[in-house]
Amino acid sequence: MLRSWHDGPTKSAIVDFVDWAATNVPPEERVAVFDNDGTLWCEKPMYVQLDFLLRRFKEQADDDPALREKQPYRAAYTGDLTWFGDAVTKHYQGDDVDFKLLLAEVLSAHHAITVDEHASRVKAFFAEATHPTLGRPYTSCGYTPMVELLRYLADNGFANYVVSGGGRDFMRPVTWQMYGIPPERVVGSSVGLTYRDADVFITAEPEFLDDGPMKPVRLWSRIGRRPILAAGNSNGDVEMLEFTRGLRLLVRHDDAAREFEYATGAERALQHAAASDWTVVSMRDDWRTVFGSG
Amino acid sequence: MLRSWHDGPTKSAIVDFVDWAATNVPPEERVAVFDNDGTLWCEKPMYVQLDFLLRRFKEQADDDPALREKQPYRAAYTGDLTWFGDAVTKHYQGDDVDFKLLLAEVLSAHHAITVDEHASRVKAFFAEATHPTLGRPYTSCGYTPMVELLRYLADNGFANYVVSGGGRDFMRPVTWQMYGIPPERVVGSSVGLTYRDADVFITAEPEFLDDGPMKPVRLWSRIGRRPILAAGNSNGDVEMLEFTRGLRLLVRHDDAAREFEYATGAERALQHAAASDWTVVSMRDDWRTVFGSG
Repeated sequence: MLRSWHDGPTKSAIVDFVDWAATNVPPEERVAVFDNDGTLWCEKPMYVQLDFLLRRFKEQADDDPALREKQPYRAAYTGDLTWFGDAVTKHYQGDDVDFKLLLAEVLSAHHAITVDEHASRVKAFFAEATHPTLGRPYTSCGYTPMVELLRYLADNGFANYVVSGGGRDFMRPVTWQMYGIPPERVVGSSVGLTYRDADVFITAEPEFLDDGPMKPVRLWSRIGRRPILAAGNSNGDVEMLEFTRGLRLLVRHDDAAREFEYATGAERALQHAAASDWTVVSMRDDWRTVFGSG
Repeated sequence: MLRSWHDGPTKSAIVDFVDWAATNVPPEERVAVFDNDGTLWCEKPMYVQLDFLLRRFKEQADDDPALREKQPYRAAYTGDLTWFGDAVTKHYQGDDVDFKLLLAEVLSAHHAITVDEHASRVKAFFAEATHPTLGRPYTSCGYTPMVELLRYLADNGFANYVVSGGGRDFMRPVTWQMYGIPPERVVGSSVGLTYRDADVFITAEPEFLDDGPMKPVRLWSRIGRRPILAAGNSNGDVEMLEFTRGLRLLVRHDDAAREFEYATGAERALQHAAASDWTVVSMRDDWRTVFGSG
C-alpha cells in the first residue's frame, strides 16, 4: 500500500490518519477532497484545459479565416503559446485586459451544444492529445502516488471528490478512468446550463469559478458535509484546506528532474502550511515515482 | 417487495422496468430522481418548509415586538395561516406582491448563521413539529409506498436523488432517516453561501430555485448523468420527467380519504402524462397504504 511513497513522516502521517479514521469516523463522514491541477495531474507548462481550448480555437480559426486576425484565435492558429501564458501571468499581476479577452472567448468556445456533445469533444481531446513536454497522453499525467492515495482512501471507505478550479464538465469524462472518481463527485468551475427541447445545453454565461473561498462553498453545496481530508497545491486551495477538519496535504512542486519546480501561485499556501499542522508533500523527497516510470 | 403497492399495471410497470435495468444498465448509470413535496412526503395543507419558516417568524416576532406589526411576522405571530396560503395562491394567479414580501423575509430568516447551525435548527424543528391535520411527526409523513420504492431501487443498485423545489439545506438533515438518501444526493433550492473565518455561512441572497426547467439543469450539474427513472407530481416536475430516459412516474393526488385530493398545480403534468408514456400513480388505486397505517 502506497508503494510509490517513500517511507517517512509524510507517508506515516497519511497512514496514521487513515487508520484512525477507519476506526473512529463513520463511513458516510469519510469525505476527502482533492484539487486537480497540480495536485492530481500535471499543470505545467500549461493547464490541460488550456490545451483543449487552444485546439478548439485553432479549429474555429481553421473554419473561419476572419478569426485568425483576432486574439486568442490568432495565437492558437499560429501556435504562439506565449500569448496565453502571458495573459495568465499578467492576470496574476493585476493586468486583466488579455485575460478578460481570453475568458470571454473561453466561455463561448462550446456554447449552444448539449452536455453530451460537450462530453464527446472532451473525450476526443483526451483520446488524441499528449502532454507537450512529457510526451505521454494527458490521461497518463496523473501523479501515481496520488492515484494510489485515492485508491487507498477508497479501500478504507472514503468518498473521494475532485474540487477543482478547472472546468467540471472538462474533468468529468476522464476522472473515473484516471482516479476512480465518478462524475457526481466532481466539483469544478462551470458555465451556465440551460434546458430546452428535452435536453441540457451549454451557455456562454459564467456560473461558478470554483477557486479560493468558493471551494468550501461549492463543496459544501454539493456534499453537505465537511471533509476530513483535503489535498491541494496552490493559493486557491487555502480555504478548502482551512475548512477541512482532519488531514490537510499540500503538494510541493520541488522536483525539476521528474516534473516541474515552481512555487509561483503557492506562496500563501506554503506560508499557511508552515504556520499550521498541514502536511507538506514533497514530490522530490516523498515520492518514489511521479508518473509510474521514475 | 413493494408490499404496500396493489398489484396492477402501475406496480408491474415499475417491477418490469427495474428488472430490465438491473440486467441491462450498468450500475453507475442507474440514477433515479425524486421530487419531494407531494411525491415523497405530504405537501398539504402547506409545505413542511413553510411550517418551519412560520415557526422561525414567530420566534423572531416573540423576540422583537416591532416585527409583529409587519407581514409575514404578524401572520405568523397571530397564527393567521390564511395570509401565507393566499400569498402562494395569488403568486400562481399572477399577483406577486405578498409572495415577494414573503420571499424576502424567507431569504433572511436564517442568514448569517453557519450551515451547521442551520442544520441544528432544522433538526430541532423535525424533532418537535407534527403535521397540522395528520397529527403525526413530519418525519412520518413520507409516503410508505414511495419509501418502499426507494429501498427497492437501492436494492437493485440504483442511486436515488431528491431533486426538489424545496430547500436543499432544509431537507438534507432528514433525508437519510426518512428515505435512505444521504445529503450529497439532495438537490434543491438554495440561498447563497459565503466563506469566512474557516466556516460556511448562509447569506440572504437567492441562489437557485430548483423548479421547472431548472430541475434538469441542476440535476445534471450535480450528477453529470441523465436519470433513467424520475418521479414527480406537479407542473414543476415536467421538465425533469421529460429529460429522463426510462420510467417516468407521476403521483396523482386523488385520495381525499387517506391524504388529499387536488390537481391544482399539476394540470400541465397530467396533460403530459396523458399524451406520453408516463406512468400515473394513483394514490387511491395503486397504494395499499399511504402512511403505513392504512
